[in-house]
Amino acid sequence: MVAVEKAAVLGAGSWGTALAVHLARNGHAVSLWARRAGLAETIGAARENVQYLPGVKLPETVRVSTRLEEVLAGSTVVVFAVPSHAFRGTLAAALALLPAEAVVINVAKGLEEDSLQRMSEVYLQESGAADLARYVTFSGPSHAEEVGRNLPTAVVASSPFASAAEFVQELFMSPSLRVYTNPDTVGVELGGALKNIIALGTGIADGLGFGDNAKAALMTRGLAEITRLGVRLGANPLTFGGLAGVGDLIVTCTSRHSRNRRAGIEIGRGRTPEEAQAAVRMVVEGVRTTRAAHLLSRIHGVEMPITDQMYRVLFEGLSPAEAVKHLMGRGRTREIEEVAGFDVWWSRKRS
Amino acid sequence: MVAVEKAAVLGAGSWGTALAVHLARNGHAVSLWARRAGLAETIGAARENVQYLPGVKLPETVRVSTRLEEVLAGSTVVVFAVPSHAFRGTLAAALALLPAEAVVINVAKGLEEDSLQRMSEVYLQESGAADLARYVTFSGPSHAEEVGRNLPTAVVASSPFASAAEFVQELFMSPSLRVYTNPDTVGVELGGALKNIIALGTGIADGLGFGDNAKAALMTRGLAEITRLGVRLGANPLTFGGLAGVGDLIVTCTSRHSRNRRAGIEIGRGRTPEEAQAAVRMVVEGVRTTRAAHLLSRIHGVEMPITDQMYRVLFEGLSPAEAVKHLMGRGRTREIEEVAGFDVWWSRKRS
Repeated sequence: MVAVEKAAVLGAGSWGTALAVHLARNGHAVSLWARRAGLAETIGAARENVQYLPGVKLPETVRVSTRLEEVLAGSTVVVFAVPSHAFRGTLAAALALLPAEAVVINVAKGLEEDSLQRMSEVYLQESGAADLARYVTFSGPSHAEEVGRNLPTAVVASSPFASAAEFVQELFMSPSLRVYTNPDTVGVELGGALKNIIALGTGIADGLGFGDNAKAALMTRGLAEITRLGVRLGANPLTFGGLAGVGDLIVTCTSRHSRNRRAGIEIGRGRTPEEAQAAVRMVVEGVRTTRAAHLLSRIHGVEMPITDQMYRVLFEGLSPAEAVKHLMGRGRTREIEEVAGFDVWWSRKRS
Repeated sequence: MVAVEKAAVLGAGSWGTALAVHLARNGHAVSLWARRAGLAETIGAARENVQYLPGVKLPETVRVSTRLEEVLAGSTVVVFAVPSHAFRGTLAAALALLPAEAVVINVAKGLEEDSLQRMSEVYLQESGAADLARYVTFSGPSHAEEVGRNLPTAVVASSPFASAAEFVQELFMSPSLRVYTNPDTVGVELGGALKNIIALGTGIADGLGFGDNAKAALMTRGLAEITRLGVRLGANPLTFGGLAGVGDLIVTCTSRHSRNRRAGIEIGRGRTPEEAQAAVRMVVEGVRTTRAAHLLSRIHGVEMPITDQMYRVLFEGLSPAEAVKHLMGRGRTREIEEVAGFDVWWSRKRS
């Protein structure tokens, strides 16, 4: 059995709470940080996060607090479970209080809006660390409520340093949660962030009344262009076929709870992107991510036809029906050569 | 526009009928062969395949017949749309009647039960052809009823010979059907065949009451082991991330109509594999394919943990709950190294 660690979990949303519960069930001493005093109080009193993870009791070993210094004191592990746009600020506040040897685990998925940085890049910049030897990205298809209920789940712990990834694997591994290591942090981060574009897109397809074929095509070709961008940015293409890539894409695109998908459905039915976001009462992550990916594809000269059309629908008033016409009417293309970046096999004439 | 071809479609099930209709809409002269006289008559009279593709009218240019020599006379293209177990026999009967320059397109997905051959291997053996210069595998996520209704769909035309794949791409391309070429016939064939194992497995997970996390994990890790076998057999791993791989997997695992999935649900709920197949009134393709893949994995020394457990459930009386325990309790593993077949990045220490 793994040694008992003192783990801090920052962020008491559904995922942070589920991970705190999971770590406590695995025998670790856990402190859960909630930003809002009201939330910390009700969780502490009910021993349950009724608002974000109803029905899951907190083990006695989980302490809940709004005081960052109390939560972080003596921590050997810190899980950041705040939204991606809050990661830089929370990290900056935590760094001053964090033991130097602590391992940082980040579950936030997204690209920073203005800098276009991945979360590990934000970490390197804020911490001044020379490398990711103490930073692990934690990702994969994982609805919090299912982890809270001990339903079988598989995720990825990624660091270019085997020892860091394997430490986190050991920490979380349980009979209901399998953790795979993956050294390709670039790919794991991009998979988790960019899938939201496709989730929004499949929602639009649903809203237009299209079927399963269109949805599978959009997911597959969306994955192909995400992979293409990822490879250009240094990722391993195999990562996009893994849990943080297609695994997370499947969960997001087929979930009834996904806000990205629900907003997409509204857009497909004829509402404007603004009306759709109002309807789901939230700025949808996929909208922000589409803007970021569109920019990255321009900067790096990577062809991303689905992202392009999504951008035109979301920011330039193109109708979804026109976008589909553009996508279906593109020139004839080859499936895997464009991902690999070169002519893969034709020349070999295999049979 | 592409030249008008004389196309024969052999097999008047839902997919054969949809492809005949599609080719006719694309301007080609089409003859559709039905094995049963009763079926040919009712299709001809109603101008609709009421039994297998209701609601889709046959264009006037589609001729329906039970006479193979009539259907094949002068054909420049022959689409084989019979079940995989009937391909060898139908091909043998057709070869004698087929113009030498005709291109053979096969849409059957599966491995031959006794020989374990892929369909292109059956073709090479039966035809005596030296290579696949006149043989194209046609695959991807494509419910027939959606193609019949002109809903957006994307598929793959595969041959190691660019000219053959591009000919078929040109033939089928339309505003509602995009065709991608892929030179990796081995990967395209294996993706289409082996996905049924995973569809059966996700059905079992549903029947056990598991959630979206388990399903996405099973699909992703199932894809990983299919890819591993594929790479061992000479396929390109990128193909399994494409339309004939993950695309088809998504459609099959999320469809309510999939017999594999429905049989899996029954097994997950506690019925025996025999009872489950009786309940869906059919020998389920995934059962046959599990046996074949299990054998291939043994012959080639490829680790396929999900296929192994599926085999034990289907043929050795293991309970699904025990199978899950085995899968979740496996040793700690790494995500992409096992697919690539070597240690991918650790040594590089990237950040």
